[in-house]
Amino acid sequence: MEYNVVRDAKKILNDSSYVVKNPNQNKNRWNKVFGNNNPIHLELGMGRGEFIIEMAKKYPKINFIGLELNESQTATAVSKLGNTHINNLKMICADALDIINIFGREIDTIYLTFSEPWPKPIDERKRFTHESFLKLYDRVFKKNKHIILKTDNKGLFQYSLETLSSYWYTFKKISLDLHNDERNISNIPTDWELKCVKDGKPIYYLEARFDE
Amino acid sequence: MEYNVVRDAKKILNDSSYVVKNPNQNKNRWNKVFGNNNPIHLELGMGRGEFIIEMAKKYPKINFIGLELNESQTATAVSKLGNTHINNLKMICADALDIINIFGREIDTIYLTFSEPWPKPIDERKRFTHESFLKLYDRVFKKNKHIILKTDNKGLFQYSLETLSSYWYTFKKISLDLHNDERNISNIPTDWELKCVKDGKPIYYLEARFDE
Repeated sequence: MEYNVVRDAKKILNDSSYVVKNPNQNKNRWNKVFGNNNPIHLELGMGRGEFIIEMAKKYPKINFIGLELNESQTATAVSKLGNTHINNLKMICADALDIINIFGREIDTIYLTFSEPWPKPIDERKRFTHESFLKLYDRVFKKNKHIILKTDNKGLFQYSLETLSSYWYTFKKISLDLHNDERNISNIPTDWELKCVKDGKPIYYLEARFDE
Repeated sequence: MEYNVVRDAKKILNDSSYVVKNPNQNKNRWNKVFGNNNPIHLELGMGRGEFIIEMAKKYPKINFIGLELNESQTATAVSKLGNTHINNLKMICADALDIINIFGREIDTIYLTFSEPWPKPIDERKRFTHESFLKLYDRVFKKNKHIILKTDNKGLFQYSLETLSSYWYTFKKISLDLHNDERNISNIPTDWELKCVKDGKPIYYLEARFDE
């Protein structure tokens, strides 16, 4: 996916109250950051934040955290927020591999929306549904595990169905064409997603659970 | 799927050495029927038998049984066999619900290829991947469970991913477009399947396992 390089990204991040600067210091105390004990949902690779921002607006009783490695993309996400005061939204600019340093067992749901597919076999370990990532998620999920994944990439979706099921997740809802699904699954689309739909490409969706 | 009514179906079935007439009598002794201890693979709803016949020719060290409720379809399958002598192939004209009376724990693999999708919610129980069927399969699988499913029906495929994973099957291989899959998954297509491909419809494929 394309993105624009934001020149003053560092400054934008630094100036924003949405961006948590030293996230590691909040490990095991994210409920204090939000000032309540509501469930915490984490998006890995939020990109320009379209999904997580709209989710936060739609579900005020859930705390949302968007994590993104790329500074320019995070800055673009932050810029969208302007002078808003959405109390249940935070953003972190960090590597997804760092989540075990940033969170204790505090997360209720992880969103993987339009993650990099890393189609080459040599890059398999970078996919967010590679077993090594699933093991990291185990260390941040509060109790029951809950992953929601959306992608337009068939290969990544097939791969994720295989790895998640092998890791004993069960699928509560699967759609092979989210935007033409008669079940009317609740959804907040990203710009990229709407472009895919416009181009006639199906959006794949899964909701996976593992209940302790 | 359409089929022709075969007027003398009963006679065709009766005259064929491929058709096992009183299958219940062979419960727990199918290895004797085949005269060896090779693995036994069962197709439920074999239709006109295109898949199971070709599988039997391709894999002589595996015993194949095709089960079909419809007499005309079974007769059409039998008619295709002519004067052949394929030692590792048998056919049964019976209801899939009867498998627990026909087999002991003797089956290694079950194929569900282009089964009736039964799309209406009221018919859910008739789908071959409904939990009630998965429970029947438990009683005929020798040890490890192994299901291979192919369909052109998106709804049935989504449903099957959900029910199989909820029943603790794991997916070893999934393809959302079997005929354009770069992994080159081994496949014997049926006439219906080739028609779908010609019409540009994707074929969905899954291999599910549960190892004891």
